[in-house]
Amino acid sequence: MVREMHLNAFLSSVGHHQAAWRLPQSDPLANTDVKHFQHLARVAERGRLDSLFLADHPGLWGDISRQPAAALEPTVLLTVMAGVTEHIGLIATASTTYNEPFNLARRFASVDHVSGGRVGWNIVTTATLIAARNFGLDELPPHGDRYARADEFVGLARKLWDSWEDDAILADKEVGIWGDNNRLHPAAHDGTYFSVAGPLDVARSPQGYPLLVQAGSSEDGRDFAARHADAVFTVQKTLEEAQAFYADLKKRAARFGRDPETVTILPGIVPTIGATQAEAEAADAELGSLIKPEHAIKQLVSILQVSADELRLDEELPAHVTTDRHIEGAQGRYALVVGLARREGLTVRQLIGRLGAGRGHLTIAGTPEQVADTMQHWFENAAADGFNIMSPVLPSGLEGFVDHVVPILQARGLFRTEYSGTTLRDHYGAARPTNQYVDGLG
Amino acid sequence: MVREMHLNAFLSSVGHHQAAWRLPQSDPLANTDVKHFQHLARVAERGRLDSLFLADHPGLWGDISRQPAAALEPTVLLTVMAGVTEHIGLIATASTTYNEPFNLARRFASVDHVSGGRVGWNIVTTATLIAARNFGLDELPPHGDRYARADEFVGLARKLWDSWEDDAILADKEVGIWGDNNRLHPAAHDGTYFSVAGPLDVARSPQGYPLLVQAGSSEDGRDFAARHADAVFTVQKTLEEAQAFYADLKKRAARFGRDPETVTILPGIVPTIGATQAEAEAADAELGSLIKPEHAIKQLVSILQVSADELRLDEELPAHVTTDRHIEGAQGRYALVVGLARREGLTVRQLIGRLGAGRGHLTIAGTPEQVADTMQHWFENAAADGFNIMSPVLPSGLEGFVDHVVPILQARGLFRTEYSGTTLRDHYGAARPTNQYVDGLG
Repeated sequence: MVREMHLNAFLSSVGHHQAAWRLPQSDPLANTDVKHFQHLARVAERGRLDSLFLADHPGLWGDISRQPAAALEPTVLLTVMAGVTEHIGLIATASTTYNEPFNLARRFASVDHVSGGRVGWNIVTTATLIAARNFGLDELPPHGDRYARADEFVGLARKLWDSWEDDAILADKEVGIWGDNNRLHPAAHDGTYFSVAGPLDVARSPQGYPLLVQAGSSEDGRDFAARHADAVFTVQKTLEEAQAFYADLKKRAARFGRDPETVTILPGIVPTIGATQAEAEAADAELGSLIKPEHAIKQLVSILQVSADELRLDEELPAHVTTDRHIEGAQGRYALVVGLARREGLTVRQLIGRLGAGRGHLTIAGTPEQVADTMQHWFENAAADGFNIMSPVLPSGLEGFVDHVVPILQARGLFRTEYSGTTLRDHYGAARPTNQYVDGLG
Repeated sequence: MVREMHLNAFLSSVGHHQAAWRLPQSDPLANTDVKHFQHLARVAERGRLDSLFLADHPGLWGDISRQPAAALEPTVLLTVMAGVTEHIGLIATASTTYNEPFNLARRFASVDHVSGGRVGWNIVTTATLIAARNFGLDELPPHGDRYARADEFVGLARKLWDSWEDDAILADKEVGIWGDNNRLHPAAHDGTYFSVAGPLDVARSPQGYPLLVQAGSSEDGRDFAARHADAVFTVQKTLEEAQAFYADLKKRAARFGRDPETVTILPGIVPTIGATQAEAEAADAELGSLIKPEHAIKQLVSILQVSADELRLDEELPAHVTTDRHIEGAQGRYALVVGLARREGLTVRQLIGRLGAGRGHLTIAGTPEQVADTMQHWFENAAADGFNIMSPVLPSGLEGFVDHVVPILQARGLFRTEYSGTTLRDHYGAARPTNQYVDGLG
């Protein structure tokens, strides 16, 4: 069988460029507009993409002056998009640090039911003080604790998703027996972080478990992904870095006893598509001109954990901001931003321009052919199993990708022309999990 | 202005009668069937009902052999139903004991956005050990603690819903300012049960707050409803009891400084509709014959907190089961069941028949005129502001109610013939709440 790419549309209201909302065609209220998200979902499905994805953070980033800052709860928005599509997978971020396992396992199982088996969960531990303070904490739980909790959380969620055998419902009207109590399995979980009796109050869902996605880049994060994830989102700026990450993660998966091919690695790509390269670069330049430096400085302060007066627009980052400096928070993002600045010797102003466009992801401004060429190059050189498409402007960027890049990938035999399965797991070639109580020890 | 009834369709997959799933026409898998719930929502909207409602319990009742026992997470299911309707309100139960305020406030705000202002929250404290054990507890938190937590929870949710002023989003593309930070109000809540910084990461929703609904019947529960609820669901078996409850709750509302007319009281009614009374009674009898006594005994054991061997099918309840006995759990339901049994001197077998049909609610088997007559009698005699329609069999019971009872109520001028507003609050005549930071102290 020919190896094909997997493509995910990372949605973000009006687009991933922080100034996208200022474009004339952008709806600055799109983040609460059902019709906008329904349109995006239909476009992604028209392109036969594997899935769409909503990031999430349970808290408001400090400054709403900069860009559209609010976001609907993602499982609600997935359900909205499930209602107008039939095939495309629906992935949402949810935090293991700020949810109850019973509630979250149930919600994902519910969305899996209503979507006919199309839900995915991007597992995050949420590395911000902003979120912590919305859940009774004064400080961010340490990195290791968050991952230990996440690990227990996922194991417990699996118990809950398996707590109904697939054939637990007999529906025997004649005898008057609806379900078989012997095919229920309480989680009976008593762990370090959680104590949950179970069983879940939702029958096992079409996919068994949601597709499990992860995007950690720290040591803990990579091990977590290698143990649990069916798909991995990652931020990689160069082919070499992407290859190193790809090799490392596949090796870790093997070390945990998994077939490395069952872990799909999807670097982010920020494509600006034009009829010519010059047209694409002009579109990027227009977006860049709409970034306000004072806003971008605030963002850098948060990522780098420095004070604003340490940063000078036309100088490089302060000397103490090194890649190996320890910070409590999103270490992967920190290392990526500092690495980018140091590698290319960027001033703060230059760094801001680069981050505004792609937040450290691979950015390409070019023709559809050029975008497809880069994707093919990464895909065929052990850097990617597919891509996380982060259009700078939505919906136009996704429309352009679907209408102009996807056909090229299809013509080259690199991407499906029709959906062959019905569930998100089908699209990613991820097997439906066996039930641990039936097929494992039980 | 003429006083009109408010009508809510209490949905329950195949119906409220515990044996409904055994009828030939019932789909025993309806509880996870999107199309079934979409159909119910459309039927309720065709009848111009104020709202539909999903109960909820975060845990599986022990025995799945008896009847369809699983249920999708209700805010997911509301979102599914929002997608195929335009007017009808959408109310879901959610527990204040087993949710984080930030997450729950955000989810209801999100559903309010995607439904265009049609969400309602039935606030419950969840009085079961089954649920407690799914959230790290070995025993049910005491009744008073649950209500104290609920009270703080609702106050905090209001702060979060008000944390964005209605005009906080400027969307000024020219200047490059999306939102006004000065029109954000952190909750800055530091209470007995919760510490939450806020603000919410969802802008203030169309209704400001969801319609707030409550159904407590204990002293704490009634006070809670009188303080917070826009609508009250209640279980009342007789006109006299309903009048007493109605008067009591309106008086409590006044005592808390509210206009009693702004609290809409909705007793449950279980209508079995037939072309003749005999036909309706035959339908009830058919359902009754499908109840298995051994299942019903288990249910009674749970409600009454006795052991199964204390119950004899053809004798009355044991002497120590008195209405004033203290139990930890759903006290209102306990008192109602024991009260019914004692008032009418029912044997356990008779009690089972009565509960199977209506779980202690007002039950009527009759013609559409008879059902409408009873409703009108309660409505015009200070017993109800409307009703919570609990069809024993779904969808047929709701279809029958909408097609045959609603037109009679409309012809009598007791119920709307068209929706006059667009939000759930509009339907119930509940004002959109002012923002506490703008119109109150601020």
